[in-house]
Amino acid sequence: MKKEFVVIGLGRFGGSIVRELIDQGADVMAIDKFADRVDEFASIATQAIVADTTDESVLKSLGIRNFEHVIVAIGEDIQSSILTTLMLKEIGVNKITVKAQNDYHEKVLRKIGADQVVHPERDMGIRIANNIMTNNVLDYLELSDEHSIMEIKANEILAGSTLIDLDIRAKYGINIVGIKRGTEILVSPQADEKILINDVLIVIGADADIIRFEKKAMH
Amino acid sequence: MKKEFVVIGLGRFGGSIVRELIDQGADVMAIDKFADRVDEFASIATQAIVADTTDESVLKSLGIRNFEHVIVAIGEDIQSSILTTLMLKEIGVNKITVKAQNDYHEKVLRKIGADQVVHPERDMGIRIANNIMTNNVLDYLELSDEHSIMEIKANEILAGSTLIDLDIRAKYGINIVGIKRGTEILVSPQADEKILINDVLIVIGADADIIRFEKKAMH
Ligand SMILES: Nc1ncnc2c1ncn2[C@@H]1O[C@H](COP(=O)(O)OP(=O)(O)OP(=O)(O)O)[C@@H](O)[C@H]1O
Ligand SMILES: Nc1ncnc2c1ncn2[C@@H]1O[C@H](COP(=O)(O)OP(=O)(O)OP(=O)(O)O)[C@@H](O)[C@H]1O
Ligand SMILES: [Ca+2]
Ligand SMILES: [Ca+2]
Ligand SMILES: [Ca+2]
Ligand SMILES: [Ca+2]
Repeated sequence: MKKEFVVIGLGRFGGSIVRELIDQGADVMAIDKFADRVDEFASIATQAIVADTTDESVLKSLGIRNFEHVIVAIGEDIQSSILTTLMLKEIGVNKITVKAQNDYHEKVLRKIGADQVVHPERDMGIRIANNIMTNNVLDYLELSDEHSIMEIKANEILAGSTLIDLDIRAKYGINIVGIKRGTEILVSPQADEKILINDVLIVIGADADIIRFEKKAMH
Repeated sequence: MKKEFVVIGLGRFGGSIVRELIDQGADVMAIDKFADRVDEFASIATQAIVADTTDESVLKSLGIRNFEHVIVAIGEDIQSSILTTLMLKEIGVNKITVKAQNDYHEKVLRKIGADQVVHPERDMGIRIANNIMTNNVLDYLELSDEHSIMEIKANEILAGSTLIDLDIRAKYGINIVGIKRGTEILVSPQADEKILINDVLIVIGADADIIRFEKKAMH
């Protein structure tokens, strides 16, 4: 059975969700109150519909309560975002994800029953800042407040060493779980694997330990 | 020596970058053309300045060319974004990151010398869609087009098995590199480690293999 979603609001954020869900094989009903936005998704989404979702009768006539999950990607018009969420909750939608503009908006959304509230600009800001601060850290996955997996670009100081030479488990308490080399990914590299320039080390551990490794072993 | 950055445009995206850079101990000059936006950052940023950055003489008088890295987080006013980037390039700024609204905007920014172009709403849309499609996949780090590290929430079907029981390296070609258990992170878990309900498995491998594991072993 295919997964079925509704995305309301076809700005950059909502539009990107529609494209990616469709790419991954889901069915998506894409809704916006402006016809030009909807036209852009006519050939992409399973259904593309012009509608104002603050109107309860519209939501009912589209049969929206039968979908698994509704994403409200209305941004600037906070009132429409809140009203739409309220209507979706009232008609009995099972799971509702909503984009918030600020903390106050989030608070209201949680109170009226939104299951997931997201802050795309804020979250990307944090990601970009992390990326900027650590020149050799290309990307990361936060595992907890204090632990991450980080992609660290090997420089000329690391190149030529084997993992045994570096002995980073003992020295820093962190682990290299993979190496990205060109288009190849070496999973669980052997201890005698030699690091090449431009390798990307995939490292797991405490943030402080990884940063210490980046600062000490690479400079 | 402290790292020094300039962030231009204090919307949600730019504002979030300022906060995170400051949190991480950097110096940040925060600029917006509207005083109310700037006031919000007066007690947060190292310096908070009201200025229109499309004016070259303003950029020069602020000494912006001496900073390591300038982030242009102007959104809707594409013309201001482009003009600001052009001016920064002309006065000789070393590294410029710019937020783009769409592909056309990105193309122009690259042509005039932006070093990094980001699409926060689009990228977060992709992340959210991935998160929505795979119920048990909580978060992920894309290593390449076809490989990722994913956080997979263990369900009642996995609970009670040891890593040997599952034998996922042989069966799926993927590796468990860590387990998140409450606030604890087990790095490189032993083969006889027993999975508990609510454990989060941190798995590395080909996307298709991880998804196959999630579909077959957990349902
Ligand atoms: N009541 C409504 N019913 C349906 N669609 C709506 C409603 N209100 C707003 N929208 C649509 O939501 C979309 C996204 O909202 P908005 O214009 O605030 O985008 P934005 O915050 O700039 O989004 P992004 O940052 O994702 O580009 C718009 O295309 C808008 O037409
Ligand atoms: N020429 C300029 N000089 C300085 N600041 C500017 C200039 N043009 C725009 N800005 C500022 O850039 C900020 C962000 O731009 P915009 O209002 O387009 O936000 P946005 O796209 O909604 O941002 P976000 O999605 O990050 O919330 C605004 O606070 C705006 O005042
Ligand atoms: Ca953290
Ligand atoms: Ca906006
Ligand atoms: Ca936005
Ligand atoms: Ca991919």
